[in-house]
Amino acid sequence: MQTTAIATTVFITPDQLLQHWQGHRSLTRKAIEAFPEQELFNYSIGGMRPFSALALELATLSILGVHGAVTGTWKQLEEIYPDNTNPTTKEGLLQLWDDATDYLNVFWPQIPEDRWQETTRILGQYEGTFYSAILYWLDNENHHRGQGFVYLRSLGIQPPFFWDRGQSW
Amino acid sequence: MQTTAIATTVFITPDQLLQHWQGHRSLTRKAIEAFPEQELFNYSIGGMRPFSALALELATLSILGVHGAVTGTWKQLEEIYPDNTNPTTKEGLLQLWDDATDYLNVFWPQIPEDRWQETTRILGQYEGTFYSAILYWLDNENHHRGQGFVYLRSLGIQPPFFWDRGQSW
Repeated sequence: MQTTAIATTVFITPDQLLQHWQGHRSLTRKAIEAFPEQELFNYSIGGMRPFSALALELATLSILGVHGAVTGTWKQLEEIYPDNTNPTTKEGLLQLWDDATDYLNVFWPQIPEDRWQETTRILGQYEGTFYSAILYWLDNENHHRGQGFVYLRSLGIQPPFFWDRGQSW
Repeated sequence: MQTTAIATTVFITPDQLLQHWQGHRSLTRKAIEAFPEQELFNYSIGGMRPFSALALELATLSILGVHGAVTGTWKQLEEIYPDNTNPTTKEGLLQLWDDATDYLNVFWPQIPEDRWQETTRILGQYEGTFYSAILYWLDNENHHRGQGFVYLRSLGIQPPFFWDRGQSW
């Protein structure tokens, strides 16, 4: 009976949230792939960062966020993932992206089930719950990928479809 | 004991999700305000829609989504909210935005607690859960607002801060 009560009052389960996020991460990977190598690292609009820098931020936060939720502590990327933290090629960026994908799949199930509603200092700085940190990452990914779509459109390149969350590699 | 078990295994409660969404909606409102009237309705990059059209889509989906979750049925905007469905001024767009804010606050608490994990035909078309529909709206808002930020930057206008989710009106 208790299990039924939990199942019917939940908005989203942690497993569903991981699937949702990985769907978005699959779409962001397609956006990285859609950029020509040169424009990925150099093109921008209105003084903003190139899409490679936005994608690097997203991959980094993914790893730090899950590490934070598993352990309850916040690290620098180099402390958790010492290789390839500043890729300078599309291939290297995609490799980091895929490593982050594997990292999430491996470590997410180890996050304690009562972690999400706990309060922490996110990235050692901002007070908030663990669920709000992960949603901030997800929202930030949609935000920056949307910006990458504008870069692509202004280059005359068709972005991937927003609804296309399946793997293509 | 049952209540405790529910509270500690939840990722996010429906109330928290509403607060999270309304924080984002507050930020999107600030982005609408940041556009000059003319550019809000006419400016775009790469053949995309102007930000007024993106914001109108977001306001419309907000109302349809909550109506759908409360009733389990999907309507056209005109059937639920007959006034001001196609505003042509910044003031009119902000009025629709604020009406949607009130609509969400009034009707969200009426959503049955076991609704979120139910499957539906979202907007009468795509099979999915109610939670996935609402997250799609939220993700879509971050996506399109991020695009609006690029429009603003390319116009030499400082967008609001991504982390600024408080009301300012």
